[in-house]
Parts: sequence; C-alpha cells; structure tokens
Amino acid sequence: MNKVEQFICQAVNAVPVSGTSLIISLYGDALLHRGGEVWLGSLAAMLEGLGFGERFVRTALFRLNKEGWLEVSRVGRRSYYRLTESGLRQARRAESKIYREGQPSWDGKWLLLLSEGLEKNTLQQVKKELMWQGFGALAPSLMASPSQRLTEVQSLLHDYGVAENVICFEASAPLQLSRTALRARVESCWQLSDKNARYEEFITSFRPLLPLLRDAGDELTPEHCFQIQLLLIHFYRRVVLKDPLLPDELLPPHWLGQSARQLCINIYQRVAPGAQLFVSEKSETSVGALPAPGGGYFQRFGGLVLP
Amino acid sequence: MNKVEQFICQAVNAVPVSGTSLIISLYGDALLHRGGEVWLGSLAAMLEGLGFGERFVRTALFRLNKEGWLEVSRVGRRSYYRLTESGLRQARRAESKIYREGQPSWDGKWLLLLSEGLEKNTLQQVKKELMWQGFGALAPSLMASPSQRLTEVQSLLHDYGVAENVICFEASAPLQLSRTALRARVESCWQLSDKNARYEEFITSFRPLLPLLRDAGDELTPEHCFQIQLLLIHFYRRVVLKDPLLPDELLPPHWLGQSARQLCINIYQRVAPGAQLFVSEKSETSVGALPAPGGGYFQRFGGLVLP
Repeated sequence: MNKVEQFICQAVNAVPVSGTSLIISLYGDALLHRGGEVWLGSLAAMLEGLGFGERFVRTALFRLNKEGWLEVSRVGRRSYYRLTESGLRQARRAESKIYREGQPSWDGKWLLLLSEGLEKNTLQQVKKELMWQGFGALAPSLMASPSQRLTEVQSLLHDYGVAENVICFEASAPLQLSRTALRARVESCWQLSDKNARYEEFITSFRPLLPLLRDAGDELTPEHCFQIQLLLIHFYRRVVLKDPLLPDELLPPHWLGQSARQLCINIYQRVAPGAQLFVSEKSETSVGALPAPGGGYFQRFGGLVLP
Repeated sequence: MNKVEQFICQAVNAVPVSGTSLIISLYGDALLHRGGEVWLGSLAAMLEGLGFGERFVRTALFRLNKEGWLEVSRVGRRSYYRLTESGLRQARRAESKIYREGQPSWDGKWLLLLSEGLEKNTLQQVKKELMWQGFGALAPSLMASPSQRLTEVQSLLHDYGVAENVICFEASAPLQLSRTALRARVESCWQLSDKNARYEEFITSFRPLLPLLRDAGDELTPEHCFQIQLLLIHFYRRVVLKDPLLPDELLPPHWLGQSARQLCINIYQRVAPGAQLFVSEKSETSVGALPAPGGGYFQRFGGLVLP
C-alpha cells in the first residue's frame, strides 16, 4: 500500500461514513453534470475500492429512494438511479455553495425578518429552515442575513403560510460603532468559532495530501483520483454547507473558510481529470455510456477545473 | 357665573391638577417666547382666578426649583423665576411636538435599535428613554421609530454608555405584506388604542367650548382667554407628548390625533390675543414689563397664531 492509498484508507476510516450521505456526494460531484443517472452496479464498482460492498450501496440507494432523493427505473434486471426533481434542486443549491467562485462583494445591506408574535411551533420550523439557508438569529424573533435577498425568502415565507405575519426589513448599519457591535454579535449568533474549528479540522485532514500528490507521479491511478475527489468533497461539503458564507467585513480575524476553500481547489484541480476518467470507465446508464460533463462542470470554482 | 366661566370651573375641577405641571404648562405656553422670567406675585395673580392660592403657587415653584426646572433670582424682597438651561431644552422639545405644523411626510424609513445582550438594568433605562422619545418595542430587544433619525439618537446612546453595544439599522419594509403585519404590530406595541381613547377624551372635554366661544362676544374677558388657553394646552400636552407622532401610513383608521389637534388650534386662535393681553398686564419681570412675544410664538401651529 503506497502513501496515497494509506491516506485514502485513513480518511475513510477516521469517522463513520454514512452511505446515503456519501452517495449524495457522489451524485452531486460526479454525476450532476453528466446526465445524473447511473446503474446500481456502476455505483458498487466505483465504491468497491473504498471498502464498501454492494450491500452497503443497495441499502443506501433504498433509503435515498424512500426519502425522495433518487428515483429508480428498471430495464430488464438492472436498476438505474437518478436524482429526483427535488433531489436535483437540492444538489444544485449545494453545488452553488460548494464550488462557488469566491467571496461575493457585499453592499452592506441586511435582510431582517421579524417574527415576533408568531405561533411557537411555526416559529421553530421557519427559524430552522431560515438557518439552513444561512440566516442567523440576532435576537430570539429577529433573523438576519447579509447575503440573502428578499425575493429568495418570499417564497419560503409563503410556503410556511407566514408571509403576512413576518415583517421583512431591508436594512443597513451606517454607524461605525454599530458595525463593531454587529461583528461581535455575528460571531456569537452564527457560532463562527465552532464553524472555524470545523474548517481547521478539514485543513488538518487534507493538507498532508498535498506533498503526496506532488510526489505521486504514475502511482496515482484514476481510481485514486476518484476516491480522493469523492472524500475531499464529501468532507468539505459537510462544513461549507453549514457556513453562512458571510461577507469578509463580518468575519472574525483568522477565519479559515478561504484557506479551506483554496486547499479544496488545489487538490480538486490535481485529481479531477483522473477522477473523471475513472467515472466514465465504470459508469453505465440505461442508454449506455455516461455523457461527457456539461459546461457547468467546468465553471466550478470560477472555471478553475481543467478538462 | 356665565357659561364660559362654568366651563372653566368644570375643566379645573374635573381632574386633580398638579401645580408643578400646570406652572410648567404656563411657562411653556405663555412665557417661553417672552423672556421666560416672571415674578412669583405675577404667577399668583394669573392663577388666582382659577382658584389657586399663593400657597399653591409657592409650593409648586419650590418643587420646580428643586427639580431643576426653574431657577430663582431675588431682587429686594421679590423672587423671580425663570426656566433653567435644561428646563428650557425640555420646554423647547415639548413645544415642537405640541405646536407642530402638521404631519410630516414619511419616506418609509425606520430606525431600528437592537439591544440584544445589554445588561438588564441598563436596557430598562435606555428603553424608557427611547420610548419617551417616541420609540416603540417591536420585540423585547428591538426598538423602532419611523420618525427619529440616527443623529438624534446617537448622543442619547453615548450618554448611556451603550453606543458600542446597541446596533443601529436604517431600514425599510419593502413588501406590501410586511406593511400589513407592521401596522398591526405598530398598533399593539405603541398602544395606539389607548392613546386614541385619550385623544377622544380631550375632544369630548373641549368641543363644548366651541359654541360658547362663538356666542360669547364681550363676555369673554382677557382673563377668560388666558384661563382657557392654559387649560387647553395643559390637557392637550398631556396627550400629545405621549403620542409617538407616527406617519399617517402607520396609523389605524379613525385615529383622532388630527381632530384633536385641529380642535386645539381652533380654540387657541380664538383666545390667544386675549390671553396674551392678560399675561402682559399681570406679569412683572426683574427689569419691568414682560417683552412682547418673539417670532417663534407666531410660528406655532405653522403660523396659525394671530398677533
């Protein structure tokens, strides 16, 4: 077992890996821009080298189908799985966070949602959904986001039937002193220390891979590339999807989000061509070979992914 | 006793009148633009006809002096009372609300002050002061005002040492649905029903005076005019100083603030010349007669007070 293989083995075994979560990572990363459908046997073949058996794959697919992430179609004795309509929507939303181009510049505007007087259970549900979308609770009934726009939130409020009860403000904090207080408040209400620790963990786990990749040469097979890319994105997405992606002005000093992202890009660039090759080789769809990646794939990280 | 005298007698006796409050009303209404200083004996002479004796006046002046509203200077055996620096400031602030020109137009902007995390006692104090300035509590830690501006509030936050802990937002509520929710919230958090009831009370008390004034003719002496004006302003200020003076867009239907104000103006216009005459006649300052009213006096109610 060479050093790259040792690294992969360690990464898989360091923490328990959920099958459903890993397969969603695989669909989102490797299949989203390649038709989004693949044979069960292909998935098993791709994951075999990581130590996951066919049974592990079957169980995960069964669950993802039941939870509405994947739909299945059968041709003869073979089952082909593809992202459902809602699974696709979620995957695209995750993609825009995971592979985003960089920190968008901020116009200093906040979106504030005041939910005072809302029924308690409804409030909890709406808050949970808003937090998932990157909102933070500046006060118990005041949710805030520096990056969300009114139009994006309107439909969510409608879906929960609270559009008439939640008061939406577009706001700016013009006082310098306010901004200082705001930064302190932001740090605590988005639990940024906690999130920074998770970025640090990610960096600590994947940084040792850099010299190995530099020295690997021919030892680095397409399968290694695929395994590294899948694990990289699987662990990176767990952190980045919980990151509210706040503008620089609001982040604490020593924020590690940008370093983590750059590390992710550097590894991704190195392994992406090999990984793509491996996926092409192993995948079979209901109409034959997997299509080549669409243009959106090469736009990832602002166009940094090489064909 | 004619009907006007009956009215005055009823108005004085309907509710207990605080001497300090009545004398502040007198200073603010009749003396603010006429040098602001007057002999104790003159005050007693002016208030005698309402049934208040010299002792009542002395006690009230003593208290107002102790509380920092009035300062006293003695010339020979006579005491002259004038508004202190801070008394003057308060009187001017009250004047701008009592005699304001009309409803200013609203640009739809809100000032929001988020005091989450402030120490409890400090929070209570700051909230109390802000509410006095017309702020309402949209949520326990979120004070809001549609008419206050940032610069006006900044010094207040500095005075309480919380400028670095309170987050100031300038905001607008762009959604139509938000505005509906906002109006409902505004009604409850500024206790507008309660305030409307007080306006109604004022109107019910002073409306019967209109026909009496119309029919009075020569029976209406300068002293009657003075008494009516003093009582009118005394009771009107008690309501209007607690009115947050919200823009029309945020007020409930059937809001009585404007009617009360118009009633006040109509009576004021009728009695002001006589009242002025009476005050001139009875007042003596440390340098002789009271000066004629300054220009500010005639600007009251947007210039509706006739010389």
